[in-house]
Amino acid sequence: MATRSRFALALRRARICAPQSSRPAALRPLTQLRWQSTANTDNEAAAKAATSTSKEIKFTSETYPEIKRDPRYAQLTEEHVKFFTDLLGEGSAVIDGVTKDATDDIEPFNGDWMRKYKGHTKLVLKPGSTEEVSKVLKYCNDHMLAVVPQGGNSGLVGGSVPVFDEIVINMSRMNEIRSFDEVSGTLVVDAGCILEVADNYLKEKGYIFPLDLGAKGSCHIGGNVATNAGGLRLLRYGSLHGNVLGIEAVLPDGTIVDDLSKLRKNNTGYDLKQLFIGGEGTIGIITGVSILCPQRSNAVNVAFLGLESFEKVQQAFREAKGQLSEILSAFELMDSYSQDLVHRVTKNKHPLEGEHPFYCLIETSGSNSEHDNEKLEKFLEYVMEKGIVADGVLAQDATQIKSLWGWREGIPECLGHWGGVYKYDLSIPISELYSLVEDTREKITKAGLIGDGDKDPVVGVVGYGHMGDSNLHLNVATRTFDKRVEKELEPFVYEWVSKRNGSISAEHGLGLAKKNYIGYSRSETMIKLMKQIKNLYDPNGIMNPYKYI
Amino acid sequence: MATRSRFALALRRARICAPQSSRPAALRPLTQLRWQSTANTDNEAAAKAATSTSKEIKFTSETYPEIKRDPRYAQLTEEHVKFFTDLLGEGSAVIDGVTKDATDDIEPFNGDWMRKYKGHTKLVLKPGSTEEVSKVLKYCNDHMLAVVPQGGNSGLVGGSVPVFDEIVINMSRMNEIRSFDEVSGTLVVDAGCILEVADNYLKEKGYIFPLDLGAKGSCHIGGNVATNAGGLRLLRYGSLHGNVLGIEAVLPDGTIVDDLSKLRKNNTGYDLKQLFIGGEGTIGIITGVSILCPQRSNAVNVAFLGLESFEKVQQAFREAKGQLSEILSAFELMDSYSQDLVHRVTKNKHPLEGEHPFYCLIETSGSNSEHDNEKLEKFLEYVMEKGIVADGVLAQDATQIKSLWGWREGIPECLGHWGGVYKYDLSIPISELYSLVEDTREKITKAGLIGDGDKDPVVGVVGYGHMGDSNLHLNVATRTFDKRVEKELEPFVYEWVSKRNGSISAEHGLGLAKKNYIGYSRSETMIKLMKQIKNLYDPNGIMNPYKYI
Repeated sequence: MATRSRFALALRRARICAPQSSRPAALRPLTQLRWQSTANTDNEAAAKAATSTSKEIKFTSETYPEIKRDPRYAQLTEEHVKFFTDLLGEGSAVIDGVTKDATDDIEPFNGDWMRKYKGHTKLVLKPGSTEEVSKVLKYCNDHMLAVVPQGGNSGLVGGSVPVFDEIVINMSRMNEIRSFDEVSGTLVVDAGCILEVADNYLKEKGYIFPLDLGAKGSCHIGGNVATNAGGLRLLRYGSLHGNVLGIEAVLPDGTIVDDLSKLRKNNTGYDLKQLFIGGEGTIGIITGVSILCPQRSNAVNVAFLGLESFEKVQQAFREAKGQLSEILSAFELMDSYSQDLVHRVTKNKHPLEGEHPFYCLIETSGSNSEHDNEKLEKFLEYVMEKGIVADGVLAQDATQIKSLWGWREGIPECLGHWGGVYKYDLSIPISELYSLVEDTREKITKAGLIGDGDKDPVVGVVGYGHMGDSNLHLNVATRTFDKRVEKELEPFVYEWVSKRNGSISAEHGLGLAKKNYIGYSRSETMIKLMKQIKNLYDPNGIMNPYKYI
Repeated sequence: MATRSRFALALRRARICAPQSSRPAALRPLTQLRWQSTANTDNEAAAKAATSTSKEIKFTSETYPEIKRDPRYAQLTEEHVKFFTDLLGEGSAVIDGVTKDATDDIEPFNGDWMRKYKGHTKLVLKPGSTEEVSKVLKYCNDHMLAVVPQGGNSGLVGGSVPVFDEIVINMSRMNEIRSFDEVSGTLVVDAGCILEVADNYLKEKGYIFPLDLGAKGSCHIGGNVATNAGGLRLLRYGSLHGNVLGIEAVLPDGTIVDDLSKLRKNNTGYDLKQLFIGGEGTIGIITGVSILCPQRSNAVNVAFLGLESFEKVQQAFREAKGQLSEILSAFELMDSYSQDLVHRVTKNKHPLEGEHPFYCLIETSGSNSEHDNEKLEKFLEYVMEKGIVADGVLAQDATQIKSLWGWREGIPECLGHWGGVYKYDLSIPISELYSLVEDTREKITKAGLIGDGDKDPVVGVVGYGHMGDSNLHLNVATRTFDKRVEKELEPFVYEWVSKRNGSISAEHGLGLAKKNYIGYSRSETMIKLMKQIKNLYDPNGIMNPYKYI
């Protein structure tokens, strides 16, 4: 292809007349990269590595001794259990001390994948229909039994695991695709449908789910909507508040909210479904979702770039927005610290030779690969000629695309390798986005808490995230959860973000982890108005207690 | 350009081997069109023509005698007026019988541009700040004075004019652009900022407002958000529920809802601002809006096509979605009846020779004109070769683009030329979208109500709208509002739509016009939940009474 060779030429040109880059030797044709054949298993390896360190998981009630079980809630009795098993059948309930086969052990429902939260539930219910959810909730509400809605349990803030003995309402049995309209792209699914299952279904129809995230293989769409998940392609497809067309949900009193519209436009009254998007299961349980899915792009390209400063990352982002415009589908940021830790865990060879302070992953998705290649290559020529980007590679096939994404998507899992991770998910005005990571690293270093020794609590302070959405993930990888580290981090991080009118939870939600910090992002007035909504829909407070606001 | 000549070639080819089109002679090179030099004034002419018929406007209270003034509301006293004028200054109030200069006459605030609704307000207030709005509302709430929030007053359902003596709170003085971030594209404006003013401002910065509609020269952004306006480019940029990042609003009790976030992601509690988007001023007044604006496309193309059946319109839409994908920014539908009426009013020469039952306007917006031209021309070649499209023209410059849009945007105004228009704004599953127009026309014809005579009440039954959003505008142009016509139309239209799970208000909102018909699109449960929200925020019911739900 003409454009391809033109690009190679430009790269050579760039090498000759490269501006003052600190690592001119790193500039080389992007096609010369030797790719790892282990690409596909990067994440699995990372996951295994990350969870290989066995540690005793503390009960949440011990980690947070200030949270007391609310005495208004009833204790579970045999009579309650009988009602539920009569309603759902025994196969649809996991009862502590009764059901004891290997797969249905109650422990997985009591904890999260980060091994950070652990509850005391004695009962997990798996309703098979919206009507069953309605009957379960009504009974719980009438009998003051607290509940926790649970999807794929892939959350990061402890929102989907019980704190005390709340009944877990697990949605995994409601996992059907209800309908799909091939002209409009409207998909209707049960809440318990796994994101990847839906996306694979859509793939066959030439469509794509407008949300993608690392946990796609296990997270439920209902959970995605309940937590207003953002993920990797929000930059392109927008937020769930715009894409979700309808919701079916059940209120604590058993009322079925039948708002499962398949229409793109429907201006007939308050858009109540929006309260459930990001409501984190505190006012009801989502049982069905109708969502507008865009056409799947024929052409997907991924470039992985090395840059010398955060100033240059911003320049590259501005250029990408301008030049790639409608085909830009992801602009991800990773600092060198994050890449170093991923390398230490996976042992994979990094896509770029030499080290750069910052890396960006740029993805384009469009309908015409020739046009997209031309746009992307022109952009890459420009940013390399201008010295904005120091080095880069362009994936040549789907395997390489997956491998490059692995260096971004693998970060969260790899960071857990040494023990635990303090995770912060923040929205910060873009110009100051990375300063927080530097300030935090400096603070931890000054306190003498970081190092390579076994006794040093902190392994690394890293920053990565969705540059396109001004969304930073500040992560502090530790060998052990240490009160001294926590004291350095909090409330420092929240105050830092609050001063810049940022958000203390960009996409992960509040759950249990952020509950106490909402005041850093919301005014008293807003919190009061939110509590009003909570009281309106859940006057008994049985829905996902001890969390959110 | 090579692609341009290739297209001309293909068109000739299409002419030779054209499939069974009923008008093969109409196929001709798109560049041969002689354009009207009056292009720019099409809409103005239409507007003048449309309003030239003077008719007595009835008071809404006479048109709807079943609506009675709610005796709970206080009558306006001199003491009330004094409070407001002391607060705002006399220049910021229009008082019936007191202020009497030509520009500040109270009548324009009592009526709508369609001359369909007319209220009895005696007081118009124009607050200049959010704090003033807060003080005004608190006073009204404390004294049980009903109010109507009013933006540009360009609505179609009577939502922004008083029914009885409600105080009009007109937002035109709050019309500043507060801030714009050139990296993120986040615009913050006062609610009274005119849409076109904001868009022109953004144009200079290389950005575009993610909403466009015919009334852009007068409508306020606050009104757009309060009515969840859809408009011409929702297909590309999505709905306001996705694009609005933050809202500042005032509740009836004077509480300022300070939710004016500039962040793309902010998962810290219920997304309360969503209730104000489409809330039609019934729970509070929006005073400020923060909105994410996309980059403006360098390349905009418009094609105007003639098609022989609605089946072919659907085929063309499917092909456009597939082939134009990320650059498709509008796909508008117009039937021949609508085009005939526009022609009769404007006397302009239609862009296509010969007559076709259906016309579509396709717009593309992208970052690279060469790529976009190639995609569009390839698409046009395809649909003409396959006989999906019978004839078409492609605009060659901005004037032609404006002129082609005039044939779509001019419809609403031209239809009013003969007297009045029964307007329905409906979401209908796409396959049945046009059947409603045919069924309605048949019904009106059978009833002997349509014709060219002065005594025939109906001039024409036309269908047009946003094909890309499954949004049909069914309009019945009449010489006079006639109860016989109304009886044929209602509840027929609503029942027809309800049977197909459509929406009786896709984008215009409920206002006064659709208030009684919400039951055709929403269940009892949903209406009950909506009333709960209304009561929560506006327990005294002073906000925009007699309307909505």
